[in-house]
Amino acid sequence: MSRERIAHGEGAIYEFSPDLEAATSVESGAELTIETRDSLDGTIRTESDVLDSIPSEVNAATGPIAVEGAQPGDVLRVEIEAIRLAEAQGRVITIGGFGLLDGDDVIEAPRTRLTPVEDGTIAFGDLDVPIEPVIGTIGVAPESGSYTTLVPHDHGGNLDTTDMTAGTVAYFPVFQEGALLAMGDCKAAMADGEMCGTGAEIATEIDVTLEVVSDPETELERPLLETADAWKTVASAETLEEACELANRDAIELLAAEHGFDRTDAYMFSSLVGGLEISQVVDPLVTVRNAVPKAYLTSPF
Amino acid sequence: MSRERIAHGEGAIYEFSPDLEAATSVESGAELTIETRDSLDGTIRTESDVLDSIPSEVNAATGPIAVEGAQPGDVLRVEIEAIRLAEAQGRVITIGGFGLLDGDDVIEAPRTRLTPVEDGTIAFGDLDVPIEPVIGTIGVAPESGSYTTLVPHDHGGNLDTTDMTAGTVAYFPVFQEGALLAMGDCKAAMADGEMCGTGAEIATEIDVTLEVVSDPETELERPLLETADAWKTVASAETLEEACELANRDAIELLAAEHGFDRTDAYMFSSLVGGLEISQVVDPLVTVRNAVPKAYLTSPF
Repeated sequence: MSRERIAHGEGAIYEFSPDLEAATSVESGAELTIETRDSLDGTIRTESDVLDSIPSEVNAATGPIAVEGAQPGDVLRVEIEAIRLAEAQGRVITIGGFGLLDGDDVIEAPRTRLTPVEDGTIAFGDLDVPIEPVIGTIGVAPESGSYTTLVPHDHGGNLDTTDMTAGTVAYFPVFQEGALLAMGDCKAAMADGEMCGTGAEIATEIDVTLEVVSDPETELERPLLETADAWKTVASAETLEEACELANRDAIELLAAEHGFDRTDAYMFSSLVGGLEISQVVDPLVTVRNAVPKAYLTSPF
Repeated sequence: MSRERIAHGEGAIYEFSPDLEAATSVESGAELTIETRDSLDGTIRTESDVLDSIPSEVNAATGPIAVEGAQPGDVLRVEIEAIRLAEAQGRVITIGGFGLLDGDDVIEAPRTRLTPVEDGTIAFGDLDVPIEPVIGTIGVAPESGSYTTLVPHDHGGNLDTTDMTAGTVAYFPVFQEGALLAMGDCKAAMADGEMCGTGAEIATEIDVTLEVVSDPETELERPLLETADAWKTVASAETLEEACELANRDAIELLAAEHGFDRTDAYMFSSLVGGLEISQVVDPLVTVRNAVPKAYLTSPF
């Protein structure tokens, strides 16, 4: 199967909802190249382009892509094979009303800094930062409720998680027939936490392989990531503490199932290896991961 | 100078306060071996030894050690060279009223699991976990106020930070003459977050070299860690979000000083590399780090 290209123009969403209509449909096993715009839709081109507040439409997610055969209760396996930058510059911004230090007298918002793409790096002033592209927004149609592409939740969405990069396999619960996957809001580089509100936002092409895991051994309530070294549960909530609880509970379930622990022993074991990691602290809900090294967990599917 | 041994019996504290009296005094440059008891003072020896609630005295910290010449405004450099386990078993426990999932119906508290020490690993049931010892409580006499050894704050204390391990250099602000350093509460292994309330708690010997940085180029308000690859600010507060703010602000100061950024550009740059990391989410104040890779920061002293 040659790689099918899914252009941004074929469809993009600013909201994940149960009644999404597919912009395109593919078979399980499809190898795709998905084009994504930058999170600000190309409106930030010079350092004079600044945003006084978050636009009502941000983080355009290319899709929705229906994967044939995906039924509620299934799992959608998204193998991220490569992410290529698709423009000559990224942009890092502060925005009025957004960011970890929002409201601080010393921090100027809005401000825009461009990050020109060089050979394997982006430039921030005199500094060069290695390009390590991250997909910020990636998710499926939710079970219920509507979430803009700025919000992360059990369906994925604006997870802003540095692990969402080439080499990772992301597993999503399927809530709606076809799953209805969409992705966008990529960064050429990003720190855990995304403190100012953005990484280096940039347009990309993403190579993925999509596969339906039918009748999975383990049902997911929230996304699960498989990196080179670890399995990581991913949870979003109003506070970091609440997100930590959810992510830890999900990790406990996996450890209990793998080792025959009861939940208390799984909880105690989870306190010895890997651990809690911040994804982002700036979106309307915040996101945390609980990593468990692969030495202690095999695939739950 | 041969390595001076500081036995736990020479002095240990359960509280960091401005008026600590030194148990021992050393010169700047002293190479020491510091003995520490486990955080529960040897009271948990079998799986029948359980704790219904946190004892009033926990996390005994060997010391205080006065370092000659340390004056308020200085920095105390603590190079952690080695941490050796000093008993044949650790222990992981749940305690009534403590831990991320405290109050959960499914989690049993109290419970005790012993972790026998093997060859480079500890055993948790059938699983083996590599020994990577961590100093949980380490700090200096604070500027004002009294903090039990269960509490982390600007003086250090119960930071429960996995980076506090062999190979790291920890820098503490000196608030009181002599600094008055104490440490204890070690773990044979621990996850970021310390979710159940403990790692594998165990007695140790710690080899450190202590040095006063007089009239430092940069004054510290909170601890700073230097690992093999990164500089990490460390902050504690009532919520993870507040701790993130403090840790990010401290990182911003370092980046601004290094690169001549204003604080807004430093804030934006901090959102591209390294990032926020959870230390622990269980103590009376919670602790977060902001990591900046060494490629972007040199020593601020």
